[in-house]
Amino acid sequence: MIVVMRVGASQEEIDTVVERIESIGYQPHLSPGAERVVIGVVGTGQDRPADPEDFRSMRGVDSVVPIGAPYKLASRNFSAEDSVFTVRDTPIGGPGIALMAGPCSVEDREGTLEIAGELAGMGVTILRGGAFKPRTSPYSFQGLGEEALKILAEARDATGMAIITEVMGSDEVEMVSDYVDILQLGTRNMQNYRLLEAVGRQPKPVLLKRGMSATIEELLLAAEYILSQGNAQVLLCERGIRTYETATRSTFDVNAVPVLKGLSHLPVIVDPSHATGRADLIAPISRAAIAAGADGLIIEVHSSPEDAVSDGAQSLRPAAFAELLDGVERIAQAVDRTLIRTPTTAP
Amino acid sequence: MIVVMRVGASQEEIDTVVERIESIGYQPHLSPGAERVVIGVVGTGQDRPADPEDFRSMRGVDSVVPIGAPYKLASRNFSAEDSVFTVRDTPIGGPGIALMAGPCSVEDREGTLEIAGELAGMGVTILRGGAFKPRTSPYSFQGLGEEALKILAEARDATGMAIITEVMGSDEVEMVSDYVDILQLGTRNMQNYRLLEAVGRQPKPVLLKRGMSATIEELLLAAEYILSQGNAQVLLCERGIRTYETATRSTFDVNAVPVLKGLSHLPVIVDPSHATGRADLIAPISRAAIAAGADGLIIEVHSSPEDAVSDGAQSLRPAAFAELLDGVERIAQAVDRTLIRTPTTAP
Amino acid sequence: MIVVMRVGASQEEIDTVVERIESIGYQPHLSPGAERVVIGVVGTGQDRPADPEDFRSMRGVDSVVPIGAPYKLASRNFSAEDSVFTVRDTPIGGPGIALMAGPCSVEDREGTLEIAGELAGMGVTILRGGAFKPRTSPYSFQGLGEEALKILAEARDATGMAIITEVMGSDEVEMVSDYVDILQLGTRNMQNYRLLEAVGRQPKPVLLKRGMSATIEELLLAAEYILSQGNAQVLLCERGIRTYETATRSTFDVNAVPVLKGLSHLPVIVDPSHATGRADLIAPISRAAIAAGADGLIIEVHSSPEDAVSDGAQSLRPAAFAELLDGVERIAQAVDRTLIRTPTTAP
Amino acid sequence: MIVVMRVGASQEEIDTVVERIESIGYQPHLSPGAERVVIGVVGTGQDRPADPEDFRSMRGVDSVVPIGAPYKLASRNFSAEDSVFTVRDTPIGGPGIALMAGPCSVEDREGTLEIAGELAGMGVTILRGGAFKPRTSPYSFQGLGEEALKILAEARDATGMAIITEVMGSDEVEMVSDYVDILQLGTRNMQNYRLLEAVGRQPKPVLLKRGMSATIEELLLAAEYILSQGNAQVLLCERGIRTYETATRSTFDVNAVPVLKGLSHLPVIVDPSHATGRADLIAPISRAAIAAGADGLIIEVHSSPEDAVSDGAQSLRPAAFAELLDGVERIAQAVDRTLIRTPTTAP
Repeated sequence: MIVVMRVGASQEEIDTVVERIESIGYQPHLSPGAERVVIGVVGTGQDRPADPEDFRSMRGVDSVVPIGAPYKLASRNFSAEDSVFTVRDTPIGGPGIALMAGPCSVEDREGTLEIAGELAGMGVTILRGGAFKPRTSPYSFQGLGEEALKILAEARDATGMAIITEVMGSDEVEMVSDYVDILQLGTRNMQNYRLLEAVGRQPKPVLLKRGMSATIEELLLAAEYILSQGNAQVLLCERGIRTYETATRSTFDVNAVPVLKGLSHLPVIVDPSHATGRADLIAPISRAAIAAGADGLIIEVHSSPEDAVSDGAQSLRPAAFAELLDGVERIAQAVDRTLIRTPTTAP
Repeated sequence: MIVVMRVGASQEEIDTVVERIESIGYQPHLSPGAERVVIGVVGTGQDRPADPEDFRSMRGVDSVVPIGAPYKLASRNFSAEDSVFTVRDTPIGGPGIALMAGPCSVEDREGTLEIAGELAGMGVTILRGGAFKPRTSPYSFQGLGEEALKILAEARDATGMAIITEVMGSDEVEMVSDYVDILQLGTRNMQNYRLLEAVGRQPKPVLLKRGMSATIEELLLAAEYILSQGNAQVLLCERGIRTYETATRSTFDVNAVPVLKGLSHLPVIVDPSHATGRADLIAPISRAAIAAGADGLIIEVHSSPEDAVSDGAQSLRPAAFAELLDGVERIAQAVDRTLIRTPTTAP
Repeated sequence: MIVVMRVGASQEEIDTVVERIESIGYQPHLSPGAERVVIGVVGTGQDRPADPEDFRSMRGVDSVVPIGAPYKLASRNFSAEDSVFTVRDTPIGGPGIALMAGPCSVEDREGTLEIAGELAGMGVTILRGGAFKPRTSPYSFQGLGEEALKILAEARDATGMAIITEVMGSDEVEMVSDYVDILQLGTRNMQNYRLLEAVGRQPKPVLLKRGMSATIEELLLAAEYILSQGNAQVLLCERGIRTYETATRSTFDVNAVPVLKGLSHLPVIVDPSHATGRADLIAPISRAAIAAGADGLIIEVHSSPEDAVSDGAQSLRPAAFAELLDGVERIAQAVDRTLIRTPTTAP
Repeated sequence: MIVVMRVGASQEEIDTVVERIESIGYQPHLSPGAERVVIGVVGTGQDRPADPEDFRSMRGVDSVVPIGAPYKLASRNFSAEDSVFTVRDTPIGGPGIALMAGPCSVEDREGTLEIAGELAGMGVTILRGGAFKPRTSPYSFQGLGEEALKILAEARDATGMAIITEVMGSDEVEMVSDYVDILQLGTRNMQNYRLLEAVGRQPKPVLLKRGMSATIEELLLAAEYILSQGNAQVLLCERGIRTYETATRSTFDVNAVPVLKGLSHLPVIVDPSHATGRADLIAPISRAAIAAGADGLIIEVHSSPEDAVSDGAQSLRPAAFAELLDGVERIAQAVDRTLIRTPTTAP
């Protein structure tokens, strides 16, 4: 961290900053410039990074420049090797590419079992489906709740797939954790700290979606909340960010994929359905995600998108999804990887 | 709502859309253009607006254009008159301008009582102070919790001010509601639906901060969540949005003030501390907010910002705040309003 | 400037950076941290700031942190006093607030003379009107060109007002400069460097609009292009920035007003017409701009907005504009300023 | 186009809108809703799309919803087949993928000839190099100008590569067009209409970079400016957009690639150097671009980036670029395409 003093800061102001640096166990390193003094904050062995907030408001301070990452457990420095989390035989974060697919919402038992069967038939190993739906309007369909969890569990029993669903409230974490294999935190809840803490205290892996306008650093700090509670299994998910562009629902930040792989050891999953909001863009964007280094995809697939109670416009039909998988498989091979699919269904 | 069909949509696709419109109790109104068919969705008497999502994914549909607002209880149509909520003698949303001020975090008993006394001495009627702090990093100070609520209550008893504090988890709503006069929902929780529902079921007014990248419509839909649970007392708070500009912590969207006043009957409060992130900008931005029509201000004031455990860089000292009030009072009078201050302390 | 070396940078890499710093006439100041070396670049007397680009790509360099502004002539350090430019008796940048108003486009002689007369009757001293119109579509009205300049000159002769118009091409600068009192550079041309240079070489003041997604620093650097060509008379214009919000055409960055006043000695003008895109928001946003410290306003006024060939939706009728002036005058007085109006028409 | 009237618009206001629709040669189609009237604007055979601006400011109008694209020559409707432009044996826009590479700036004769030789040796067919450099600061290196054009022409003679360079001013178009094979318009000039017109009147293909905050529609309208002047050879270039994210210099909008391919028949080129600003991200982002359907890449390559006078941090060394090409070739094959390389150098 570097503390930049104002032009004309007094000696007393400089001394006060120096004293504070020493008081928190760091060494100050003064660099007297022609116009102003710059003070390096040097040290190690502290259990947490020095907090720029501690200095920003001091008299005579112009700005504080953080050097190095404010997170520890999520960082590449913490683990040079990629973390791999195995969920019911699917190793996420290794050389294989994990596939998660299914309807936006669990709408009924038959439809869910049917689509699960179709996806299992394509070799997909993880079934997604919403039980609790965060909706912008209170008047939109909010999900079937626990009933949907039971349906998902039945689909797991029938197909052998792992299941993933979103959890919205800290009260519901224990129940959802009992039913599913992976908990998902949605984009609107990326900085819902009570929820981050709650999923950090249960044992299942957590897929953490990037907030709609969260920086990459904020995503990693949100992951740090979960990790610091003792749950090491966090999957980072890039799902598009909010920009001024209106041609697509979100702007897929494909840069974030290699950036996250560089900064962190955690697996990076991409959600091309939300990152585009348009069924016709999901296949090319899925290919782009894998070409850029993503470790997995989570995609909305629905037997009849026109009847979907939510997100139909961005759901693929099973036939289109099968075609997408063929295209993605070729890209995976071009980067020396392969899609993780159950053996009976290899193409 | 208008459903725009694709160029070359088949008659069958058009018929299917028409049938769905009728099935949800609306009338379809076809407009056969030279290139494509456009279908108006006409009707009233329904208890909720037709949902564009129901049509976006249908075959042959190009796009769906909503007409009119997706919220009801928050809208100006619901109440032509401005809503006024009175909190311990301070009517918020009427001709007077409400003042909320205090430290970012409640740090200790003496400091809080001291600053409360100073603010009360200036006639400020509502004391703000954080007990539970949402922090980007898990390693930053997280607030004193219930102890802070007790200190705030003591400050209320000592000064007669009303108190406002942020609530972060649905579990904590009841406790916080017992202590304070206004509950605050922070920017990161604007779409934390469990929390919106929980504060909607308790009786105290709620100050709802706009999400860092929420549209004005999304803010009003978040308010609708609270209103639809039975709590009519929602204060909308503009606190700056996230843009590419880095000279300030946020970009204060002053346009939102008159836009919100036009779309909704709810009071609009502005938070210039977070909207700028810089102590030197708070006074001019407070004046701008009132000139644009805001109904109140919420401002961070700290006896010694350089010792604040959070947000010191954007906290004003009491003397600077007193000066700010003088400037804002003049602006208020220039728009035929006045600051609400306790009588004994009029300047 | 500070050069932050990577963790593990070699001594040779550090030495190479040090040599380059010395080779451009600065002194290196090493700060050996626990994890990495940080090198301050210290020096004065150079005719231009050290360029971070010179160091970013060097081996072993992690990042380069600029300290201090990259512009000189535009900065507050260059002139502690506010610059005041007098245009036909209107001093812009002093205690008075300059008013510029008129139609988006000059459409015909009679209409222009009529609105000029009305505005002069209200005491407005500067007439705006587009002769060359930058339009997003090549199929939209592009302006009357030189004919419009003649009409504007006639309006000036008839009313005594100064005139301002936009110039789009470096070829047209000389001609436009001959006709008008102030040249305007539009938001799309803020980084059209050939045009910046051309207006920098002619003698009339230049109103430089902020680019739709330009940072405040980039606006000041664009001003620096003009200033460095010898033209000292630059008016900075905040006209709204592009964000994700769609309720308004642009987001008016009111923070930019006090930030620019702090960083620069140049006058700051606000364009509430483009900053909102909605006639109903212009009055409150004009008040906000003046409350925040703006030195002038430029506003679209049209006798019958519904017949305007461009920007009708954001044009005010003369009666509404007169009312706006009354409201703005009161705000001006509340910040100890006054609108500059010709004496015969004081309200 | 659809004109949405306000709730409570008068019959007279509706009639006036109807008359204006008829007066421009379209048919009005009224849809009287329960709350408000919606008027479709129907018609064909007109030489240009109806302009929403004509209606937005009329009394009683709430909003105007455009249906269909505002551009014609750039649109997919104008040509169902992909346009292919052949530049010195390189067909751009066909099944092959075009490669453009070279230094950010042409700095000297020897260095340029050296890098050109290296790139030609890898089979690259188009050499990029800046002669006129748009720089944010007037104090940064501005390019060698015509001298650089001569060096580029010499490199073309020596290697047989085509050459591409940026043109900044309409005055320079003729000269630059005489020297080079493709003219480039930079991101800051995407809406420099004088320049768009000038390059539209000369015969060489134009690579048009998307503005830093331009929508996809605005990019296509800028292309329309060139096309409508008679030059049919426009290459669209996605080079990253400006967002709040600071981890990368720009956010590469990979969604734009398939969106542009769907909306337009023009070739789509991607610039991963500017889209990321970081040398370490160029290879994965190049792969992502091709996987998403891009028709070409333009990449900064420099023999010693640490000595580059501009953009060194985002320049690749030749060895890294050769490796990138291998990775991209594999991706190209995975989408049934191939890189266009001169035969002697096939890997």
